Amino acid sequence: MPRRPTMTNASAPLTREVEAMDERGRLSTISIPAERALTVYVDKRELVTLMTLGSAPEALTLGYLRNQRLVRSLDEIESITVDWDVEAVAVKTTGGIADIEERTSKKVVTTGCGQGSVFGGLMDDIDRTTLSPDARLRQSVLYRIVDTVRTVQSIYKQAGSVHGCALFSGEGELLYFIEDVGRHNAVDSIAGRMWLDGLAGDDKVFYTTGRLTSEMVIKGAQMGIPFLLSRSGTTQMGHMVADRLGMALLARCTGKHFLALTGKDRLVMEPHLADVLRVA
Amino acid sequence: MPRRPTMTNASAPLTREVEAMDERGRLSTISIPAERALTVYVDKRELVTLMTLGSAPEALTLGYLRNQRLVRSLDEIESITVDWDVEAVAVKTTGGIADIEERTSKKVVTTGCGQGSVFGGLMDDIDRTTLSPDARLRQSVLYRIVDTVRTVQSIYKQAGSVHGCALFSGEGELLYFIEDVGRHNAVDSIAGRMWLDGLAGDDKVFYTTGRLTSEMVIKGAQMGIPFLLSRSGTTQMGHMVADRLGMALLARCTGKHFLALTGKDRLVMEPHLADVLRVA
Repeated sequence: MPRRPTMTNASAPLTREVEAMDERGRLSTISIPAERALTVYVDKRELVTLMTLGSAPEALTLGYLRNQRLVRSLDEIESITVDWDVEAVAVKTTGGIADIEERTSKKVVTTGCGQGSVFGGLMDDIDRTTLSPDARLRQSVLYRIVDTVRTVQSIYKQAGSVHGCALFSGEGELLYFIEDVGRHNAVDSIAGRMWLDGLAGDDKVFYTTGRLTSEMVIKGAQMGIPFLLSRSGTTQMGHMVADRLGMALLARCTGKHFLALTGKDRLVMEPHLADVLRVA
Repeated sequence: MPRRPTMTNASAPLTREVEAMDERGRLSTISIPAERALTVYVDKRELVTLMTLGSAPEALTLGYLRNQRLVRSLDEIESITVDWDVEAVAVKTTGGIADIEERTSKKVVTTGCGQGSVFGGLMDDIDRTTLSPDARLRQSVLYRIVDTVRTVQSIYKQAGSVHGCALFSGEGELLYFIEDVGRHNAVDSIAGRMWLDGLAGDDKVFYTTGRLTSEMVIKGAQMGIPFLLSRSGTTQMGHMVADRLGMALLARCTGKHFLALTGKDRLVMEPHLADVLRVA
């Protein structure tokens, strides 16, 4: 278990109420999710501004640096200090980030929600990534996961307009559930939490409410996770990258239904379970 | 009508078929949307790589430069040349882009899908933006728009996992409908088309299948469009910016239902229409 950096535990309201008028002119009050700027400073140098719900700013910052390959291990981080009053997070590293200027200069605007800017060189790492070859997922565990996500308390149920990401153990226990206005912030936040808790991805299952675009697949691979589940679909590049990695991509996961698109051999099929009546 | 730049009309397959296995182990072939890289070179200098469906690469490139405020008028563009073989688009400007280095150095990772990286200074323009104060939208026109989107032929119906954006006249005629793996590419493509056709936003209605996040609202404002419709919801910052601009934000537009959140006075209510039976 690596040494944890010193961190704040900053919180801010995650929803706010606004007045809405419907098709009959009736007024009501609805909740909408927060969306706020968080400007990341690394060793006093401005790096990026993330637009976020704000539910896990420290883990988001850490996971962002991890998934952007700007930080290779938790030991490189001295402290993470979030201050919502100035919408900023100050990251102090132990040794600085080598040639950060050069490494953050290349922009890729991805199809992903929320975490749109992936700095260059990220794709290069993919071919060096290997996912645990023996990891398998039972259909019964898949169903347990889908049902857990269905019943979890969420900002989405209250205010809509957020994406949820969750990490599950190989047995289908919920480890983390994080929502954000951008699903890429949610996956980065989970990457940060995994580091803080010393969790490896090797036998884990990642669930997202959003689409399995190339960037989501790449992030999953960076975290070493062999199973990616979504209630939504995928794209050609997401499919191609997952296929190349031997990652199990499962789309359209709702109720008893799913579509296994890549890494099908990682799935332990129990087709009789598909006949069991859905939980109401 | 301004002079049009010389442009290619590059096309590429928008979907591909992959094999899927369902919960009973049955194999089928499904379509998924393309997702490809398009690296933008401005006067031979690499600017950014966009991940896109690829349905309107020239308009996307133009709209991207417009919405990033890198180009202020169509006359600044000499030519736009897309070559899918090298996944690149070459933009030739008439006079170059002043201090492009400096203006593209600041990164904001937004909550938006697809067009996640907004270069700095964009928010600064917002307070200088004024939307046509007299523009109004009749409830009957709103319903015409929602029904048109419902029935339009789309990649979404065929392959899912794409966002659609559409531009309508004040009378509810469909002007453009563009889909992309990221909705921000779709809105940028529409911005490009508007420039090419010399269309102003002043009385137009913008529809998106995606959420009305701050970036979508900002882009709509840049295009001078007073009406933003979505079948989805909004976020706190999207709501705040629209409210400040007096832009009409209409969320949850489906069938006869909608929620007017800001700029309600721009709506000409015809509540009796809400009682008319929905189109099956």
